[in-house]
Amino acid sequence: MQKQPVAIVFDTFGTVVDWRGSLIAELTEFGRTRGITADWAKLVDAWRGAYQPSMQRVRSGELPWTRLDDLHRMSLDHLIEQFGITGLTEADRRHINLGWHRLTPWPDAVAGLTRLKTRFIIGPLSNGNVALLTNMAKHVGLPWDMVFGSDLFGHYKPDPETYLGVCKLLDLEPGQVMMAAAHNGDLAAARRVGLMTAFFPRPKEYGPHQSRDFKAEQDWDVVAEDIEDMARRLVA
Amino acid sequence: MQKQPVAIVFDTFGTVVDWRGSLIAELTEFGRTRGITADWAKLVDAWRGAYQPSMQRVRSGELPWTRLDDLHRMSLDHLIEQFGITGLTEADRRHINLGWHRLTPWPDAVAGLTRLKTRFIIGPLSNGNVALLTNMAKHVGLPWDMVFGSDLFGHYKPDPETYLGVCKLLDLEPGQVMMAAAHNGDLAAARRVGLMTAFFPRPKEYGPHQSRDFKAEQDWDVVAEDIEDMARRLVA
Repeated sequence: MQKQPVAIVFDTFGTVVDWRGSLIAELTEFGRTRGITADWAKLVDAWRGAYQPSMQRVRSGELPWTRLDDLHRMSLDHLIEQFGITGLTEADRRHINLGWHRLTPWPDAVAGLTRLKTRFIIGPLSNGNVALLTNMAKHVGLPWDMVFGSDLFGHYKPDPETYLGVCKLLDLEPGQVMMAAAHNGDLAAARRVGLMTAFFPRPKEYGPHQSRDFKAEQDWDVVAEDIEDMARRLVA
Repeated sequence: MQKQPVAIVFDTFGTVVDWRGSLIAELTEFGRTRGITADWAKLVDAWRGAYQPSMQRVRSGELPWTRLDDLHRMSLDHLIEQFGITGLTEADRRHINLGWHRLTPWPDAVAGLTRLKTRFIIGPLSNGNVALLTNMAKHVGLPWDMVFGSDLFGHYKPDPETYLGVCKLLDLEPGQVMMAAAHNGDLAAARRVGLMTAFFPRPKEYGPHQSRDFKAEQDWDVVAEDIEDMARRLVA
């Protein structure tokens, strides 16, 4: 019998929701209705490309604590200029930036999470902020019990304050909490501070640019096909 | 048309759940099965009587930040001695203290919250800590979108950091957030920092000892009979 956690927390971007497909579809439609031409797929890839470097400025102390919504906006403003996109109002920029609040789940996500919720406390543990994650959950019906945004901790993953912060808020030992992610690096950081781990691949997360995380790179506590399969393994 | 909030946060003890009836029933059954005789109703009333004074020690700075679970336990240990109750193990004391995680909702609560959730972001804003509130929600099916425990803010209501902390985490203006409570004092504090307000009475919260909050004492934005009635007024 698989050892069972009390709570399971999920990485969100790429693991639960398809950020790339969602943003490209939304921006393509936005450009079409507004008559603005741009290589939207390339912009989305560049936007995500700015994600880790922008958080690293916070982790390193170069920037004080800054919410992901605000990092996303700084990167977006820079890319709009770099791509030479014109005609965008402040309201347009705000709308585009809040596209991260409207991402679409992978097809197995809502059903799998709903089943896991019958047995475990479930929540996102994401670098997204609470407003982003709460709005996303409302938008697409992610059935979280509690939303662990990075702004609760003032730290971005893989800083240990994030994983251990969940344990403290739930009054659980690290070994009672499972981190679930499609990213081996996230799980390695969670395991280093004592959490249980679950992996499933999302081989289309980066579209044609995916270069890693096609398979489990350690003997994670659970290795599954997707969230529904994870639920089948954990909920008898 | 009633002006509408984006999010509604609920006081919990007394407003959503019947702490007094739940704890008296649970302790009476516990005493019966364990053969321990005590005036359990009187103990529960004294325990709740210690609630505000114990939080005041934190608000005043006499104690550093201490979670409500830990304040409850300090008060319980003192009362067990004062009431001369013997034969309790450490596990018993822990079990009794976690009775606050197993409180029963008032009959209208789950249906009313479920309806409000279709339109608004809903969460508790309670002096309880995240673990207490999350476990309570799982135990009885409170359908929160997000759990705002006092440990997220390191402050107890009515400190303004609690009400304004919700607004900051949800990235909303105070006027976009509604505080709902069966306690006029909680609403007065929320209104002072700009939140919308909703009141409904819980005239049996303190059993025969109830002395106040039988009716609205200000022109709160919504005055209802209970949470289902509040939902009827806010969800067309």
